[in-house]
Amino acid sequence: MAQGPEENPTLEGVRLVLLSPLYGGNVGSVCRAMANMGLSDLVIAAPRELDMDEAARMSCSAKPILQSIRYVDSIAEAVADCGVVVGTTARLGLYRQHAQTPRELAPRIVNALDSGKVAIIFGPEDNGLQNEDLECCTDLLRIPTTDSYSSLNISQAVLLCCYELYVCKGAYTHIGEKSEEALGASRKRLFEMWEKMLLDIGFMDEEKSQHMMLGVRRIFSRGSLSEDDVAILMGVARQAIWSAANQPAKQQECQ
Amino acid sequence: MAQGPEENPTLEGVRLVLLSPLYGGNVGSVCRAMANMGLSDLVIAAPRELDMDEAARMSCSAKPILQSIRYVDSIAEAVADCGVVVGTTARLGLYRQHAQTPRELAPRIVNALDSGKVAIIFGPEDNGLQNEDLECCTDLLRIPTTDSYSSLNISQAVLLCCYELYVCKGAYTHIGEKSEEALGASRKRLFEMWEKMLLDIGFMDEEKSQHMMLGVRRIFSRGSLSEDDVAILMGVARQAIWSAANQPAKQQECQ
Repeated sequence: MAQGPEENPTLEGVRLVLLSPLYGGNVGSVCRAMANMGLSDLVIAAPRELDMDEAARMSCSAKPILQSIRYVDSIAEAVADCGVVVGTTARLGLYRQHAQTPRELAPRIVNALDSGKVAIIFGPEDNGLQNEDLECCTDLLRIPTTDSYSSLNISQAVLLCCYELYVCKGAYTHIGEKSEEALGASRKRLFEMWEKMLLDIGFMDEEKSQHMMLGVRRIFSRGSLSEDDVAILMGVARQAIWSAANQPAKQQECQ
Repeated sequence: MAQGPEENPTLEGVRLVLLSPLYGGNVGSVCRAMANMGLSDLVIAAPRELDMDEAARMSCSAKPILQSIRYVDSIAEAVADCGVVVGTTARLGLYRQHAQTPRELAPRIVNALDSGKVAIIFGPEDNGLQNEDLECCTDLLRIPTTDSYSSLNISQAVLLCCYELYVCKGAYTHIGEKSEEALGASRKRLFEMWEKMLLDIGFMDEEKSQHMMLGVRRIFSRGSLSEDDVAILMGVARQAIWSAANQPAKQQECQ
């Protein structure tokens, strides 16, 4: 389970409900997506026959979730103990215009976890949730897509919803580089060394050095520059300066 | 294509590159995810044999993308005409700690589209991108996951990246309800009517009405309340008032 609340927040209060899914492969892929984002409670309502070999294959390392799926007769039964119940839709027809995006809904869902379970329901691959399926729902979710093709693969839709919850839960702390951003003094030393280097190797002459150094500074200031980066770039310049001062006689003659 | 710049922004400058993918089903699912988010430029580098029947099956309505895949020998060839080149990774090892999340990277990618093409590279399903594969990359992307299971299905990872670009591109304008949020005057009339109704039907007496109406107001103020909603709720109250005033003698006797 979680190694720390910052890195792996608990989304175990979120139940995914699949209504009558058609393809075992999709069910397996759903399990994997849940495991990626720290969910584990999967219920299949009104099950049909599924290819469970294909499900196992697509679940990869998430077989424990596949094996603990609960099968119930109806959506009502699946969400009986849930507070917020979210229906998902690819359509924006009548009665569906209040649908929110996963990003809009995530804070509401994460807050609701403080006081109970939340369910998110996905309809069958072919037709999605019908209006009567939405009767148990308190909220409606729709993933933004192009107008020309709004029907998502169910397991991709599941991953996206779980990801938005995971990010919203404050899960993710950017680890970033270990080395700190280079200090002003380091940057100053670096550019002085580079200026000397570019002069010594004959890349530029004194006259144009100021102009050229503006360009060099810009190159090394576009992204962040760590103290480690500075150490490397200082080493390069130092070596080039040494090399320029110690060129073998033969090479000098060649020029 | 796009019906309007607001709703369907062009992400056609974003090229997806799959390095030596193993499974046709995944390639098909990638095509579908791309179509959902308005991308169409898919290149497979260093191709292996793929089950293209499975690919066609999983691509659903995105067969045009599947049929226009370009096959090239190397990553370098695939990204030769691209400016920003993003490598994807599930690992955060040495040389990978500067990886950013799709949400962090999306603005940079969308901005870069103004001046050229952008490539996002996904490695083979079994091992991902190796360090030498990252040599062509200007940026590194990692999707936040639980520590315990960081390996995503490739097509799910593709959908998530495309979705972040789609949302960032300012694609999505919330359609929302057609009816406007109810005005103060409407809300006032509504609650006055409901107070009369709750008194007339005997749900509360005058003494407790103020307290009860606080509760009623709270119920109808938790979410948004449109003018259409007010019209319905006013109708309910009006009918209940009429019904209470016109009860058949028989029912009154029963009480």
